[in-house]
Amino acid sequence: MRPAPLALTLGDPAGIGPEIVVKAWRALRAEGQAFVVVGDAQALASAPAGGAGLVRTIQSPDEAARVFPEALPVLDLPLKAPVVAGQASPAAAPAVIRWIETAVGLALSKTVSGVVTAPIAKAPLYEAGFRFPGHTEFLGELTASAPLDGARGPVMMLTAADLRVALVTVHEPLARVPASLSVERIVHTGLVTAQSLARDFGIAAPRLAVAGLNPHAGEDGGIGREEIEIIGPAVRALHDAGVDVRGPYPSDSLFPAEMRQRYDAALCMYHDQALIPVKMLDFWGGVNVTLGLPIVRTSPDHGTAFDIAGRGIARPDSLIAAVRLAADIARRRPA
Amino acid sequence: MRPAPLALTLGDPAGIGPEIVVKAWRALRAEGQAFVVVGDAQALASAPAGGAGLVRTIQSPDEAARVFPEALPVLDLPLKAPVVAGQASPAAAPAVIRWIETAVGLALSKTVSGVVTAPIAKAPLYEAGFRFPGHTEFLGELTASAPLDGARGPVMMLTAADLRVALVTVHEPLARVPASLSVERIVHTGLVTAQSLARDFGIAAPRLAVAGLNPHAGEDGGIGREEIEIIGPAVRALHDAGVDVRGPYPSDSLFPAEMRQRYDAALCMYHDQALIPVKMLDFWGGVNVTLGLPIVRTSPDHGTAFDIAGRGIARPDSLIAAVRLAADIARRRPA
Repeated sequence: MRPAPLALTLGDPAGIGPEIVVKAWRALRAEGQAFVVVGDAQALASAPAGGAGLVRTIQSPDEAARVFPEALPVLDLPLKAPVVAGQASPAAAPAVIRWIETAVGLALSKTVSGVVTAPIAKAPLYEAGFRFPGHTEFLGELTASAPLDGARGPVMMLTAADLRVALVTVHEPLARVPASLSVERIVHTGLVTAQSLARDFGIAAPRLAVAGLNPHAGEDGGIGREEIEIIGPAVRALHDAGVDVRGPYPSDSLFPAEMRQRYDAALCMYHDQALIPVKMLDFWGGVNVTLGLPIVRTSPDHGTAFDIAGRGIARPDSLIAAVRLAADIARRRPA
Repeated sequence: MRPAPLALTLGDPAGIGPEIVVKAWRALRAEGQAFVVVGDAQALASAPAGGAGLVRTIQSPDEAARVFPEALPVLDLPLKAPVVAGQASPAAAPAVIRWIETAVGLALSKTVSGVVTAPIAKAPLYEAGFRFPGHTEFLGELTASAPLDGARGPVMMLTAADLRVALVTVHEPLARVPASLSVERIVHTGLVTAQSLARDFGIAAPRLAVAGLNPHAGEDGGIGREEIEIIGPAVRALHDAGVDVRGPYPSDSLFPAEMRQRYDAALCMYHDQALIPVKMLDFWGGVNVTLGLPIVRTSPDHGTAFDIAGRGIARPDSLIAAVRLAADIARRRPA
């Protein structure tokens, strides 16, 4: 039996989403894992690298696998009005939100095997009344009532080359990071990550490494006490819960190649501690995975790139990697 | 004329200092740039990879260049008592401090062309009454009355592969970093860095890139305001002072290979923002350079490594790179 298709939400139609979706389809059409775009067919047809003959409107995701080698299948939920590439518009927001809600509904009903989301811009969504910090939290809410074994996310993981990082805090201003850390939050992130490494990544005995917060991981309290008071106790609590976990390590020692071989995921305390290594290892092809949801969800690790939208120069590497990883994870989850 | 030798301080004699000094001499003895160790001759002779026949006590740095191809020259300022490898001892602290003071004095009198410092451990020095956060600040104090053209440091720079990073804050706990930033402090770091790139690194028109503090460099104030209120104004002030400077950039975008080509040094707001990329690019061979001093000073970018001291497995890569860089800088400074 062919695997169920993935749903790929179009994201902000004025960004690079339509262009990279078309480019990703060209790269993936022969690989056997179909996806169906949930979005506006016209936006896809008029994207750079697009074309009317290349897009095929379908009525049900069941048709996607058959269509996929020949044309880009789309569940057409049209915008009220076309957008202009590079110009964020709150008028598009209701459609952008509906695409996400539709894709999540299809995943919850197992009509699709997972969701890949092209980038959204937050400012126009906020103007239209959207109240979530981003995709990840919105997906947490949309899937909150569906059952899930074990600890529930959402936890943000990024993958690039041989590195996986899971984030304890994500989009907090740096000044708020220290007060945002707690034993409970770190333990929760660690549990969700360890369970996901086993279930979604097929790692039977996952190993976690935990980063410190301060220079030299606090140097025994000489440069900050969070390692002693919060992170160290969280590592011990995770260990007591049966997780193979070590740390806290000075974060500058955690990402060289030799250290990366010693763990399956690093738990990072803040955004750039995780993202600096990810972007250094693979600036174009990193993938964002949401752990601890009842559905499979990945996305590229970049934004809408309004500055280059419509010019045909956007790179689909990260979206392609996101589709492949979603397919891998979906295959490991029970149908 | 042969260049004046460098002075190499032995650092904590119970750490890996003696071992890596001997190993660095073996690697460098044929290169033509001599150094004289300021330290304890017996500690060198009994180091792993050492030996009595290999060490030669000299009376003046003038003799170093002649001796260097044949033996490791040392200005012998003996410890009161031998130390045990791996065991930090406050009893050694007065000698450790005297070695640094002596080397700095030789550099100020131009008897040596610069100072390379092997690692010290802070705890035993503090027990003995040392009151500086580290080498860098101590060197700032020891050289404070010597004349220097332009902005005065000390500013800490690290170099690894094709990357140079200069630090605005160094060993502050992360929670104190945001309040430690000021327009004045960033501008000062930028001026010292730009001047040193020209004078010490031979870069006629140096380009600086400035990192932001918050995720996505604050995303226009949505995730923290330091970029708007402090870092952005500092970048403009540096520009007005004639520095070729750009930013603030999201720090995760600043270190991939493609971006590194666009600047000669990155100004980092905190320790791990700078050290994560340095250690990823060259875990063993990074060098710490102190900018804005009247003397040339470099050091390895690692610590005393008491855990492996005396076992013969310490790697001298960083110390060797530090000697070479000090020699390069010394050649560019007027004699």
